Amino acid sequence: MSTSLRQQLQNKIDQKTKPLGSLGKLEQVALQIGLIQQSLTPSAENAKAFIFGADHGVCDEGVSLFPQQVTSQMLANFAAGGAAMNVFCRSNGIDLELYNMGIVDTDARWPGVHHCSVAAGTNNMRHGPAMTQTQCQQALLVGREAAQRAAAQGHQIIIIGEMGIGNTTAASALLSALTGLDSKTACGPGTGVGADVIALKAQVVADAVSRCQGLSAAQILAQVGGFEIAAMAGVLLEAKHHQLTVLVDGFIASAAALVAEYMEPNSKSNWLFSHASAEPAHSAMLQALDAEALIDLKLRLGEGTGSALAYPLVKCAVAMLNEMASFADAGVSSA
Amino acid sequence: MSTSLRQQLQNKIDQKTKPLGSLGKLEQVALQIGLIQQSLTPSAENAKAFIFGADHGVCDEGVSLFPQQVTSQMLANFAAGGAAMNVFCRSNGIDLELYNMGIVDTDARWPGVHHCSVAAGTNNMRHGPAMTQTQCQQALLVGREAAQRAAAQGHQIIIIGEMGIGNTTAASALLSALTGLDSKTACGPGTGVGADVIALKAQVVADAVSRCQGLSAAQILAQVGGFEIAAMAGVLLEAKHHQLTVLVDGFIASAAALVAEYMEPNSKSNWLFSHASAEPAHSAMLQALDAEALIDLKLRLGEGTGSALAYPLVKCAVAMLNEMASFADAGVSSA
Repeated sequence: MSTSLRQQLQNKIDQKTKPLGSLGKLEQVALQIGLIQQSLTPSAENAKAFIFGADHGVCDEGVSLFPQQVTSQMLANFAAGGAAMNVFCRSNGIDLELYNMGIVDTDARWPGVHHCSVAAGTNNMRHGPAMTQTQCQQALLVGREAAQRAAAQGHQIIIIGEMGIGNTTAASALLSALTGLDSKTACGPGTGVGADVIALKAQVVADAVSRCQGLSAAQILAQVGGFEIAAMAGVLLEAKHHQLTVLVDGFIASAAALVAEYMEPNSKSNWLFSHASAEPAHSAMLQALDAEALIDLKLRLGEGTGSALAYPLVKCAVAMLNEMASFADAGVSSA
Repeated sequence: MSTSLRQQLQNKIDQKTKPLGSLGKLEQVALQIGLIQQSLTPSAENAKAFIFGADHGVCDEGVSLFPQQVTSQMLANFAAGGAAMNVFCRSNGIDLELYNMGIVDTDARWPGVHHCSVAAGTNNMRHGPAMTQTQCQQALLVGREAAQRAAAQGHQIIIIGEMGIGNTTAASALLSALTGLDSKTACGPGTGVGADVIALKAQVVADAVSRCQGLSAAQILAQVGGFEIAAMAGVLLEAKHHQLTVLVDGFIASAAALVAEYMEPNSKSNWLFSHASAEPAHSAMLQALDAEALIDLKLRLGEGTGSALAYPLVKCAVAMLNEMASFADAGVSSA
């Protein structure tokens, strides 16, 4: 019987010149990417990040600290290269692509921003579906096609990021609707709101989630999701068809992962959870996905910044597999 | 009264286009490096790593999983570019310098390895001082001069790494002797020894530490330290004279930091603790230094690997300070 690729990868890692298991989580990363690429010599040299921006009708309920026009202003900031995600992508050699998935300012256009607007933001989920099923499919497809293009361009690592004032409320609603977690536990401070606004968010989420009983994951996504969340889910679902590894960081990206895993179970073997969010309910999301985050820098920013920061670790893990000498190669005595 | 540099740095960070405090630990890193370099526009572009290798007489007690010749074999592996630290430094654009501080094989020479041998390894600390005070000063000076050269070459970030079979025992002894922590709590599995060897390590450490009552930190370093630990301490002590930031990762590097801080209090403001070691007593070391580690990848390898892996995060933190747009620059509404 031939040795499985998993065993071959593990043997290769164990023969490297280091105490057994001493590279900790990096060894798991190397193993996972080897399995995703079905290779003993995988690559993580080319990384592509997407930021999907969209507005949320639920902002009418006063759930966010920032005014809604910040979504548009931040898309302009991304286009000009001035946001945190731009800085981290430049520093770590990551290609960055920007997508307008549908914002309130429908006239806005920026050079370098893919205009894929589904609508002028979602509807207010408190009072009805955030989007139609057709709109949801349209947004998913934008993500799927973005992933396909990135794979065709030779990228192995994909980072999903988002910008959308109000989208922690959508993410909390997805978590609550999909897992049954009560809305109070599912809601947190987001970008920094106080206890009164968190209580309001929980009530809004409870109202929206009450319509989700018995619905499929795709239907729940349309009821309480967002265009940028659906686009991220599209990327996540497409990954397994192209041996792509998708890095998933914070609360919103993980909500996209949660709904994608409910839509097509076992998609998650192509995803790597890069960063633990400071948002309290992120741990419940990771638990529902049986996942553990690689690092925790106490970020609560979104944009894909946790993944952009973690990418060099992923690159190092794969370089370990490809470049590090074995005990036999180096003539080093093993324990 | 003029605004202090600390306040100016904090204001600059707070004006960046992100929710207040949302870059978590990276904001602390940016602030610290700005203070170290006394600048609102610090740099972390040039990083230099040192690996100091040395042997330990205490190996005669059977405290290590690996045979002692592995120190020499690993120096050859570093010189050939095949160790984990080589791979991570290449991947992250870090200059790597190698130092032989004194190994059992006194004839060994490798191209690219600075030969700074103090002696053929330390003496067995269980039965007497590991080194003389003169030898200790010699090893400290190697580190101080290495740091001086790196500063003169324009490096802002310094990584200290080590290789020395038996050196977790020396690090545990330093922790116990300097802080009074009992030897059982100070000792752990190192590269992977079992409970019986840990118990033996604790007895060896207790015997060595019993000679340290009333001694100065420099005297304790000579009693129970190692040449590579003294060299790292030299780098750490020199940092403040050149506005250098030293990244400190695991159990051995942190032991060097602990003794350096006892030797010259308040040196630690130039050090950044990059990685939490899997060695149990590392947390006691960090506590004694009132420090928190940036990341935790469950590494237990040494060589400076935790710092080499964390370096891109440090670079991103500084890039955030220098390159990210402010709310005013970008025309983004603040909360």
